[in-house]
Amino acid sequence: MIEGRHFRRDWSSGYDIGRKAAAQNLADAAAMGAVPTAIVVGLGLPADLPVEWLEALTDGLRDECALVGASVAGGDITRCPLVVLGVTVMGDLEGRAPVLRSGARPGQVVAVSGLLGYSAAGLALLEKYGGDASGEAVEVHRRPRPPYASGPEAARLGATAMLDVSDGLVQDLGHIAAASAVGIVLDPELLRAGDAVVRAAAEVGADPLDWVLAGGEDHALAAVFPSDICLTPGWNVAGRVVEGEGVQVAGRVAPARGWDHFGPDMS
Amino acid sequence: MIEGRHFRRDWSSGYDIGRKAAAQNLADAAAMGAVPTAIVVGLGLPADLPVEWLEALTDGLRDECALVGASVAGGDITRCPLVVLGVTVMGDLEGRAPVLRSGARPGQVVAVSGLLGYSAAGLALLEKYGGDASGEAVEVHRRPRPPYASGPEAARLGATAMLDVSDGLVQDLGHIAAASAVGIVLDPELLRAGDAVVRAAAEVGADPLDWVLAGGEDHALAAVFPSDICLTPGWNVAGRVVEGEGVQVAGRVAPARGWDHFGPDMS
Repeated sequence: MIEGRHFRRDWSSGYDIGRKAAAQNLADAAAMGAVPTAIVVGLGLPADLPVEWLEALTDGLRDECALVGASVAGGDITRCPLVVLGVTVMGDLEGRAPVLRSGARPGQVVAVSGLLGYSAAGLALLEKYGGDASGEAVEVHRRPRPPYASGPEAARLGATAMLDVSDGLVQDLGHIAAASAVGIVLDPELLRAGDAVVRAAAEVGADPLDWVLAGGEDHALAAVFPSDICLTPGWNVAGRVVEGEGVQVAGRVAPARGWDHFGPDMS
Repeated sequence: MIEGRHFRRDWSSGYDIGRKAAAQNLADAAAMGAVPTAIVVGLGLPADLPVEWLEALTDGLRDECALVGASVAGGDITRCPLVVLGVTVMGDLEGRAPVLRSGARPGQVVAVSGLLGYSAAGLALLEKYGGDASGEAVEVHRRPRPPYASGPEAARLGATAMLDVSDGLVQDLGHIAAASAVGIVLDPELLRAGDAVVRAAAEVGADPLDWVLAGGEDHALAAVFPSDICLTPGWNVAGRVVEGEGVQVAGRVAPARGWDHFGPDMS
């Protein structure tokens, strides 16, 4: 996580950034079907950073880890012109094989657990109103709410491919499609935007479904299950796996574009 | 590792920086008595970085890992105004308990394995002559040579405390002294500077023993053993553990100061 690219210190507190940095990584472990157990954190910090900011950051890291019973096991710290965080997560697969991206097969169903579009909606509000923006979407942008338990649950249910939605649903499912040599068709009727996303879209004049399909950083989980699956309540069907390649959204011409890791920085 | 602080792209190639980033972390695992098995790497890279530079970096990471049979298991990449690397290492303790910093007891001997002062000498030559500087000390500055096998070997021999010398021998042994609530006395007669260090010191008008005592980044290993230890050839006695606190160098008034993680950047 790079200051000015993944966060702004005037839009998020040190505590928020700690929560988010931990959440992104804990979600990664959950998305392989693991129970996250520990993170290690490498920090680069400006010499004039207030020590209270650093303490808030470490509080945030610790509190997010505590949600899943994980701990901050160690790390390293050095001076850097801007705040940078590098987090590595360890997890326990509890004897199961990891759920990879390559296990999707035509005929299976695609399901999603967690919020979609909230973080992008919150970012749009922050860009419009600055750090005074508020509401649930802004809260989720600052502190994502990955559905941690849904990862191991999906693995136990028999998910054959899974990932967390960090760059946008269409773009991330594209990784499963490519790794599995299949196509994926999403049904927008099954991907209704949440109330906070709809409200934010009205405020800034955006299409809420764009954020649902292409907004990153919510760290929802997306997984592929056998077609006869009996899904638990945390999971909702969003589409199906087909022969072919790429991700289509039924009824929409071009899938919206997600996060570009080498695109422009935050405004 | 932060560009401009831990390396300069005009003084080190991408390949060198990859070797060094891996070496620092593999040495950390060895210093707990583990055989390093894998690293994961988080990269922040400027958008205009030549792709050849990135390829050389990953070659360097891979080749250094290959020295110990480890692999680059994964990582992440994003845009950043300057090159930053965050590396996490995993290792196999082969059933042994990790060797910590807190196990030193008065009466034990302190021993060192690997080079001391070379990297600091090489840095001084680079600062004097720029990127055209050459010789063994410069080579070691660019690509440290940690004595990887000495770590698990020391653990098998019965080392009760160990670390790798990343910030300077006196400073790093200070961590063992503090964690173990003991003092350490080093014998400078047992810490003779290598030829390349002596030559570099003459060229820039420095004291070679200063570099041996305070120069970081060689990633030598320093360990504490029972006094009746029979050391293998890779290890050399350098001092002893005493009652008290801190690290003294016999015959010298003030121990030289090592690397300050919040001190100034490279010139």
